Amino acid sequence: MGMEKNISLGDYLYSPELLKRLDFGKSPAKFNPKITAANPGENWMIVRPLRRSDFDKGFLQLLAQLTTVGNVSKSEFNERFTQMQQSGGYYVTVIEDTRYSRIIGAATLTVEQKFIHNCSLRGRLEDVVVNDTYRGKQLGKLIVVTVSLLAQEVGCYKMSLDCKDKLVKFYETLGYTLEAGNSNAMNMRFEEPS
Amino acid sequence: MGMEKNISLGDYLYSPELLKRLDFGKSPAKFNPKITAANPGENWMIVRPLRRSDFDKGFLQLLAQLTTVGNVSKSEFNERFTQMQQSGGYYVTVIEDTRYSRIIGAATLTVEQKFIHNCSLRGRLEDVVVNDTYRGKQLGKLIVVTVSLLAQEVGCYKMSLDCKDKLVKFYETLGYTLEAGNSNAMNMRFEEPS
Repeated sequence: MGMEKNISLGDYLYSPELLKRLDFGKSPAKFNPKITAANPGENWMIVRPLRRSDFDKGFLQLLAQLTTVGNVSKSEFNERFTQMQQSGGYYVTVIEDTRYSRIIGAATLTVEQKFIHNCSLRGRLEDVVVNDTYRGKQLGKLIVVTVSLLAQEVGCYKMSLDCKDKLVKFYETLGYTLEAGNSNAMNMRFEEPS
Repeated sequence: MGMEKNISLGDYLYSPELLKRLDFGKSPAKFNPKITAANPGENWMIVRPLRRSDFDKGFLQLLAQLTTVGNVSKSEFNERFTQMQQSGGYYVTVIEDTRYSRIIGAATLTVEQKFIHNCSLRGRLEDVVVNDTYRGKQLGKLIVVTVSLLAQEVGCYKMSLDCKDKLVKFYETLGYTLEAGNSNAMNMRFEEPS
């Protein structure tokens, strides 16, 4: 399964060991200069799983740069964190600026269990955001490649994402494709998010 | 949460009670004649959650009409079923022809837990298939509308799907839309499914 739900994780959402195993040589992404999750290019930067303590390091404020978050209390955050940990399959990954103890980038891999393809696993990329004051450090590319390699590491047969037109080229450079005749993302909305 | 993982379910993947609450009047889908999950149009037909015993009722053989399934043993099926039940958020829904004890239709709602939008839930439609010898009974529409209403019932703020070009119009009649500038489904494949 590759889902690390039964081991002791401290306040990590998933095992930080998983990120150490990633081989950035497998990705078609070009980094210049070369950086990886283990060596993100600055000694004050770290790529790691989400921690409970990230509530106090601006994780939700960072997500609010992406979309509406609303007033999520610390107990609501902890409850959702616990639910994700118990369910398994949630790999929320962040970049911290350790100088200021602030979360400056995030992306989520979710892993769906299937019956098809020999009870396979399908990964999905969700909620990618990088603090826009940190442009030029390849952090968007870094966080997406990190969770994409993580999908392969935990055994997914494919990784999927939905994106806006303006981001298609970016994701193509990272190995994602619009498959001919089969690349429509449709939605039905039940209510406006508050 | 709306996830029914802690109640006694017998061999059901999720509570059959959930399907009884669905209001088909909420769906823009037009059925002619009118059918619902509770009254699927024939007295030998039933719409219900997946059961463990569906391994012996042709569930995997039906999925094989959609894509490759491979040789999944009964114990592998049961293991995946248990994992889905423990994780929560998996609503595999089937149509059975009770005359022959055969599964003739299936669709899956998966529910993803988020931090954004006040710790919201996002639904996804997966693995829709109807036995093609049962054409003309609106079963494709029935099973998709069933799990779409179920998404709303369990509290999702939206329901998403990826589909081929030729299916876009079908899903539009059920309330799904291609959102302008934001309807690209991209994939990265790590290995060929066996």
